[in-house]
Amino acid sequence: MTPINLKEKYASFSAEWHPQQITTVNDMQVLLAKVRGPFVWHAHEREDELFQVIKGTLYMQFRDRTEVVREGELIVVPKGTEHCPMTKNNQEVHLLLFEKSTIAHTGKVRDARTRTHYPKI
Amino acid sequence: MTPINLKEKYASFSAEWHPQQITTVNDMQVLLAKVRGPFVWHAHEREDELFQVIKGTLYMQFRDRTEVVREGELIVVPKGTEHCPMTKNNQEVHLLLFEKSTIAHTGKVRDARTRTHYPKI
Repeated sequence: MTPINLKEKYASFSAEWHPQQITTVNDMQVLLAKVRGPFVWHAHEREDELFQVIKGTLYMQFRDRTEVVREGELIVVPKGTEHCPMTKNNQEVHLLLFEKSTIAHTGKVRDARTRTHYPKI
Repeated sequence: MTPINLKEKYASFSAEWHPQQITTVNDMQVLLAKVRGPFVWHAHEREDELFQVIKGTLYMQFRDRTEVVREGELIVVPKGTEHCPMTKNNQEVHLLLFEKSTIAHTGKVRDARTRTHYPKI
């Protein structure tokens, strides 16, 4: 029940594509992530996923198009929708994610970067 | 599945203490609110509530203290916790709220500003 400062939290970790949990709300969690380059194509069978861009520009690839999500914008990826977030020009982008506490961040796809547990920062 | 620009959404309404829904994520909703001055003391029996400050400074009053939540910060009010958000110096503050889709924003307290349904913008 104390304020969480996003800039301070981002400054406290450096690993990319490795979300860190800052709090929970009901049965959902708020994660911070630093991302760079392409991720992996995946879908979440049962969970919607919200991406808020805190810094930089995110390119959210869907199979039929790419949506550009800029700082101050957010996008919701509905459950069952294949997506692959990426950044361009080697830019590190800071994301705030809002998702179920049970989610695996690559869906059913297994990747070296797959996490099913997120460290609390 | 298209990006939502927060500044554009804030520009689309002017009512204070009247949250507007911009999207849903699983069984939760994302609301934008413009607030000014004191709200009403209330608690949500079953729902945690997240307040992210997008612009300005929010003073989150609890019965035993007040937390100052600045731009770029967020705070979670756990279920059952009495709280009363306010702003100072007649400042209009822009909030992003994450909460259950079923929530009444004054809990069990009824106030002229009580809303149980949020317009979609």
